[in-house]
Amino acid sequence: MEPVERVTRHFQEELEQLKTRLLEMGGLAEENVRLAVKGLVERDRTLIERVMSGDEPLNRLHVEIDNRCFTIFALHQPMAADLRTVVAAVKINADLERVGDLAVNIAEAARRYASHPPVKKLIDIPMMADIAQNMLRDALDAFVRRDVDLAQHVLDEDDRLDSLKTQIFRELLTYMLQDPTTIEPALDLILVSRHLERIGDHATNVAEDVIFIVSAKDVRHHGVKARS
Amino acid sequence: MEPVERVTRHFQEELEQLKTRLLEMGGLAEENVRLAVKGLVERDRTLIERVMSGDEPLNRLHVEIDNRCFTIFALHQPMAADLRTVVAAVKINADLERVGDLAVNIAEAARRYASHPPVKKLIDIPMMADIAQNMLRDALDAFVRRDVDLAQHVLDEDDRLDSLKTQIFRELLTYMLQDPTTIEPALDLILVSRHLERIGDHATNVAEDVIFIVSAKDVRHHGVKARS
Repeated sequence: MEPVERVTRHFQEELEQLKTRLLEMGGLAEENVRLAVKGLVERDRTLIERVMSGDEPLNRLHVEIDNRCFTIFALHQPMAADLRTVVAAVKINADLERVGDLAVNIAEAARRYASHPPVKKLIDIPMMADIAQNMLRDALDAFVRRDVDLAQHVLDEDDRLDSLKTQIFRELLTYMLQDPTTIEPALDLILVSRHLERIGDHATNVAEDVIFIVSAKDVRHHGVKARS
Repeated sequence: MEPVERVTRHFQEELEQLKTRLLEMGGLAEENVRLAVKGLVERDRTLIERVMSGDEPLNRLHVEIDNRCFTIFALHQPMAADLRTVVAAVKINADLERVGDLAVNIAEAARRYASHPPVKKLIDIPMMADIAQNMLRDALDAFVRRDVDLAQHVLDEDDRLDSLKTQIFRELLTYMLQDPTTIEPALDLILVSRHLERIGDHATNVAEDVIFIVSAKDVRHHGVKARS
């Protein structure tokens, strides 16, 4: 085997390992979001506390993935699409870490929410959570498989998240106006809906990176609606 | 002049240009935040509309800076601290673009707020805006000058932003409970305080990157408090 070929093979292996670790990190972040929303819906304080104190594995993985990226840069000096992939990995890693932080923020709101009587049966918030989690999973799958269509699907889903957020806001505002005792817990539900929206934003960032990697086309400021 | 030396000099020039462009982008983002909060405080719809429709220069700069980074990677294959600087530039660029989005979000809340009677004289929100803007400016200065002490100062300031956010929330909650007609506008003020807190988070990200570049030390999960 020629030296160049050996280095190339080694590089591809490291790239595969990097993708595997990012998927693992995405899985952990997604699971924390799922548990935080389950804790909110079921008013389960044990679950809520678990999410609030459980982001250590994510943080370790975050540092490990960053180190892997820098090692790849330094040893292999990737070019073209490979270069874009490794730079995207650094950014995706940062996005996933923020998703982990947002799961903790949801758990914090859930803990406050559980100290008040429930405002209403929660239907739209779990629906937002499902959409946001699917977006995150699809965005990472799109990254690993270099699937532009799937990435585009993620961008489209963000609109659904946005309408649900607006709907939740309007409904909770009605509750607050009718009954001031709902103000505090309703505020926490509004915050949770904003956290879920931001998880969708992070999935959108990943999807935009995928489109950039594959097509070297920058979709970020063309037809992608402003966040709110 | 030796070819290697020429390439090195060329590389340092490109790195300087990259830093200049990032400072320029930071300045634009900061100015948009300032105008959005001024529009909120002075209930100035013209100003608010200007921020809402004025993020095109930021978006253009975002794409240009990303392209510069990729060109530097491809042509110069930077190593060690230079490599960390260029990777950080990609991340800082993404952070600054989000700050621009948040300025637009503040303007959107300001527009809604201006359609209701004012809840109170705004003092703490402009103070939060000042702190967040200073954090952003200091974080970028720290990046350009590789100043770890200044970066550490930015991390410390984040605590002040956090206490102000909590104080604003409590005060507005009192207004909402006493007078339901304040619920809608007070909600917008709470959202603005969250947007400003997130601007502080982005400045914090930049400051953490600076510490990582200079010392190759990862401060992100040691003693840096969780965001909320």
